[in-house]
Amino acid sequence: MADAIERVCVVGAGVIGSLYAAHLARIAEVSVLTRRVEHAEALERDGLRVSGKSDFAVRVRAAADPAALDDFDLSIVATKATELEDAASRLAGRSRGATVMTIQNGLGAEEIVRRHGDWPLISAVTFMSGVRHSDTHVEYELDTETWLGPYAGTLPYERVEAVEALLGEAGLRARAFPDLRPAQWSKLIFNATINTVAAVTGLPHVGAFASTATPTDLGHLVRDLMDEGKRVAAAAGIELHEDPWEMNVLAVQRGETEAAAGGYAHVPSMLEDVRAGRRTEVDFITGALVREAERHGVDVPLHRALYRLVRAREAVA
Amino acid sequence: MADAIERVCVVGAGVIGSLYAAHLARIAEVSVLTRRVEHAEALERDGLRVSGKSDFAVRVRAAADPAALDDFDLSIVATKATELEDAASRLAGRSRGATVMTIQNGLGAEEIVRRHGDWPLISAVTFMSGVRHSDTHVEYELDTETWLGPYAGTLPYERVEAVEALLGEAGLRARAFPDLRPAQWSKLIFNATINTVAAVTGLPHVGAFASTATPTDLGHLVRDLMDEGKRVAAAAGIELHEDPWEMNVLAVQRGETEAAAGGYAHVPSMLEDVRAGRRTEVDFITGALVREAERHGVDVPLHRALYRLVRAREAVA
Repeated sequence: MADAIERVCVVGAGVIGSLYAAHLARIAEVSVLTRRVEHAEALERDGLRVSGKSDFAVRVRAAADPAALDDFDLSIVATKATELEDAASRLAGRSRGATVMTIQNGLGAEEIVRRHGDWPLISAVTFMSGVRHSDTHVEYELDTETWLGPYAGTLPYERVEAVEALLGEAGLRARAFPDLRPAQWSKLIFNATINTVAAVTGLPHVGAFASTATPTDLGHLVRDLMDEGKRVAAAAGIELHEDPWEMNVLAVQRGETEAAAGGYAHVPSMLEDVRAGRRTEVDFITGALVREAERHGVDVPLHRALYRLVRAREAVA
Repeated sequence: MADAIERVCVVGAGVIGSLYAAHLARIAEVSVLTRRVEHAEALERDGLRVSGKSDFAVRVRAAADPAALDDFDLSIVATKATELEDAASRLAGRSRGATVMTIQNGLGAEEIVRRHGDWPLISAVTFMSGVRHSDTHVEYELDTETWLGPYAGTLPYERVEAVEALLGEAGLRARAFPDLRPAQWSKLIFNATINTVAAVTGLPHVGAFASTATPTDLGHLVRDLMDEGKRVAAAAGIELHEDPWEMNVLAVQRGETEAAAGGYAHVPSMLEDVRAGRRTEVDFITGALVREAERHGVDVPLHRALYRLVRAREAVA
């Protein structure tokens, strides 16, 4: 069958890339394109282990050199937004006609990939999270959904449904949408708020993010930021899939249940980056929202403030 | 002469209190009221040493028990705003008719003191700064002015001028104003901005605070915060003594000159508090500005945002 997805190439083996690669390797041929040679060697030698919400080990093919990779039917580009340009350039010329799926935070990942090849594209966002213990061991923390949809008419919806089914067979939760933008924007507003507030306060995503008991409580700021984002979405003609504030309240409640059960509070990736002294994805997340706001003539003073605070915080070692 | 100031009681021996006590002890009888008994004992035993912009050592009287203190003609209450209520209650009943000078950040210190006694009051703000090396050694970093004025008609302007002269004789820079509020508000807006931005970014008061080269530069946020503060001052009928943005630019330039000469970047007190895991003065500084804004019907969304971010940051150890 011409449309069968038998060979998957996962680009980037951070937490999210490793979770896709390991689960998919149980039902398909998976190759992993890494940035570091030692990482590829470790994966080839030791395979990939998942603990936490799933618990298994698999063998995968891996290489740091794209020329060493087999052809693929589907590529999941799972790098951070900050590394996407480089990752896409390494795929250039490979497996024409294969489907490429982007799962970066923010907006605009598809345009970046498109500059390096005319693959049919699936837009996706994921709510999965995990903890990286080593190059070959990832802990599956939140077994939440990946949402996916066709990008700008580059492929039929059936192809998106086929990837949804594949992810489901692999033991991951996935949901296809004929138009992903309402979901993408819900996550954009959620991320632009939760990630920046976490990065500047140093707080993981805990109860304070939803607390509005007293006027100086953080929940007011979180809601004000989300309200700004919702005004941008409305001006862009997007009807949000989920209300970001409700996503926040639910995530905080789930976090408290998990913490009570001995789990840990979720550390948003921008806070993780700030703690590690790395550059954050703020240009791709808040930056995308601010650019959309400007395009549609909406003022977003609070997002501009958080944008500047995160950029300043990045400058502190 | 009934009005002579011969006996000064300094309440609180942090950086600022120690700088006043040491300099004044060269020309007057100085007693220091400390919080900790060991601190008073160390001061009685070893005296007080100043290095940096001044360089000398003096003997002072000191006690942690207000009953052990002699009467005074002038008391300088030099605690943090967060400890003022407690400090004022310890002065209650002492030296009626003596002048009491408050130098706390923010607004409202005078009202707090007033609840504990009807001393004539001098309002003051100080731009001095230093580094505390031990209970008996303080380094004098910025030898900038103390500004002082009569509080709400509780004493004649001549008394303020007498204190100005006393501080000058002691080797400190001081400047009397018939109405301190224009200066107090300039410093309030400056502090509400610089301190909160430093506390949430982790940056000392460096060049980034005045940089507006690119749209995401921190200087834009600093200026926006100061513009909000200026709108509150205007609504309150205050004509500012100095433009807070110009104060910021000058302070940053001076800081860069000092850093180039081997000095260090100035760490605003709220950042110092956050680093040490202490409660900050945000309720007294930004809180005062937000309350004034509400009273005069001015919206200050950015100050409210920073207020909530600092409160959240205080919760992180």
